[in-house]
Amino acid sequence: MVRRTGGLFRRHNTCCGIDLHCHVVPSRFPTSPGGRDVPGWPSMTAAHECHATVVIDSKPYRTVSNACWAVERRLEAMDRSGIQIQALSPMPELFSYWIEAEAADGLVRHVNDVIATMVTEGGGRFVGLAGLPLQDLDRSLAELTRTVSELGFAGIEIGSNVNGVPIGDERFHPLFAEAERLGAAIFVHAVRPAGTDRLVGPAPLQQVLAYPTDVGLAAASVVTGNVLSRFPGLRIAFSHGGGTFPSLLPRLEQGYETFSSLKETLAERPSAQARRLYVDSLVFEDETLRHLTAIFGEERILIGTDYPFNFSEAEPIARIHNAFQEAALRERLTFANALAFLDIEEEVNE
Amino acid sequence: MVRRTGGLFRRHNTCCGIDLHCHVVPSRFPTSPGGRDVPGWPSMTAAHECHATVVIDSKPYRTVSNACWAVERRLEAMDRSGIQIQALSPMPELFSYWIEAEAADGLVRHVNDVIATMVTEGGGRFVGLAGLPLQDLDRSLAELTRTVSELGFAGIEIGSNVNGVPIGDERFHPLFAEAERLGAAIFVHAVRPAGTDRLVGPAPLQQVLAYPTDVGLAAASVVTGNVLSRFPGLRIAFSHGGGTFPSLLPRLEQGYETFSSLKETLAERPSAQARRLYVDSLVFEDETLRHLTAIFGEERILIGTDYPFNFSEAEPIARIHNAFQEAALRERLTFANALAFLDIEEEVNE
Repeated sequence: MVRRTGGLFRRHNTCCGIDLHCHVVPSRFPTSPGGRDVPGWPSMTAAHECHATVVIDSKPYRTVSNACWAVERRLEAMDRSGIQIQALSPMPELFSYWIEAEAADGLVRHVNDVIATMVTEGGGRFVGLAGLPLQDLDRSLAELTRTVSELGFAGIEIGSNVNGVPIGDERFHPLFAEAERLGAAIFVHAVRPAGTDRLVGPAPLQQVLAYPTDVGLAAASVVTGNVLSRFPGLRIAFSHGGGTFPSLLPRLEQGYETFSSLKETLAERPSAQARRLYVDSLVFEDETLRHLTAIFGEERILIGTDYPFNFSEAEPIARIHNAFQEAALRERLTFANALAFLDIEEEVNE
Repeated sequence: MVRRTGGLFRRHNTCCGIDLHCHVVPSRFPTSPGGRDVPGWPSMTAAHECHATVVIDSKPYRTVSNACWAVERRLEAMDRSGIQIQALSPMPELFSYWIEAEAADGLVRHVNDVIATMVTEGGGRFVGLAGLPLQDLDRSLAELTRTVSELGFAGIEIGSNVNGVPIGDERFHPLFAEAERLGAAIFVHAVRPAGTDRLVGPAPLQQVLAYPTDVGLAAASVVTGNVLSRFPGLRIAFSHGGGTFPSLLPRLEQGYETFSSLKETLAERPSAQARRLYVDSLVFEDETLRHLTAIFGEERILIGTDYPFNFSEAEPIARIHNAFQEAALRERLTFANALAFLDIEEEVNE
């Protein structure tokens, strides 16, 4: 399936980007199956103007703006920040890996249906990345097929771990095999991270420090699990610039040379495997952003903003233009790499 | 107390470094108190030539060479690799935080006494960094006083966490206050790390990936716990180049600007606090090493090798000379920063 994007990139390539990392929260959630009390099931209550609060287990989880679901509001914001296309994915807490599988499946399908509707209403400005109930691989494969093959999603968003199991674990190989077969892009986002018991300070440190920690370990697990060697056609991107993976890689490379058990396990050296991964640009600092191109390659960096949450990159295009001067490289990072990752095409109006 | 170093640095400054990060294992351990079965208590059994195996809970923990305790063998290796002084610290598994406190205290004192003897036998080529039984703060303060004030140790080596509690936690403030008062340097080393459940692959990945992860979170906990703001005279260094902290810092800095709870908690912005930390050079890659000077400052990087273990930096001086061309900067990184961190002085032979 070819998705047309309106041919705006070449004409306005100094302004128009593709944002891989931005989230959707539905304006409402269905009631739980049979009206039962299902632990982890979310509901929505009104908050201040244009905002609502996601409530989980009778506690406020996060208050979010209507930009989470209102297409018009998103399009206005995208025009302001120079984003031509957003890849819409669920807020990670909605992965629902920790909810009983049948109920989670229904919830995830609801969120994906909301995304599908937004994609339709967006008139070419959105593509979809589906959530999957990964605590149940059969249900996940069915939802992968439904969203990608039937609804035309560009791919899926998965957690950095599934109830503590890192995504490089071989139990997820059937998922990767099917994603590769369907040509579905995979965006890996931090969720329920490791290291929360190592934090000293207020609650946001979970997002600030433990999220990139878990993403870094997830990327490392994909490398040490030889995922890209087994599924060479897979396109897999990591949130938050790969998190701590850039700090881990040189030591992993040295460990590969030092420990025979590692050398025998890995199909290819870590630094070579790293260049098959994609990462987003959500690192908030020019030098760190430039370092990503050295590790992963100039074809592997994609815009990520975390829109519309408050801890996000407000000026994603300016960030890339500040860090990189070369026009062709700016094009790659702002949109060309994302066209390749999402496997969407630009319609050229001759 | 001034420790004299023989005046070799200025005369041979292209060859002679100070290694902050290298470990000691005693050639033998005492029997457990009363000969009881104390969980976690180590013993030593002979292995192949010049090697012995540390056995813990009836399982081999690690087979190590006699360079762990043999002074002459260390001195030969130091001469070969251009290291004038080693700061001797216990192999981290010997911290024994998980052993009942009274027994652990005796074990840690034994290890420290072995280090003290090696320092004496080394004739100015060694300084000591003591282990402390941090599961018991009173015992730790007593051992800090004994080793630093009585035995002349340069400081202490502590874990990145103590039975899961990160070292930035306020329960450790009395330790930091006393270390500051005594002028004792603190070297923080990874131990029993977070994230081991996120690894896919053979056992060495704990050292390769989870160690730097835990060190990064420990350094972040020292920043978000305002340790250097409360104890401004403290000198504290982190192993493995601060682990993942360099990847975490830009996001922590942005989080400080975004979340009022973080801004209200932190006495000073994270990037400014980072410049009060020391880190070692054990990152195995030139570009990553250069990046450390940008984050922490050129006065804050110290040689670390992990000698005499097999996953170590064999050419620490060459690593620094490859990464940095300026002579004055090479001097700082190879020895001048370490003289300041350890508060030892060079004896100039006029």
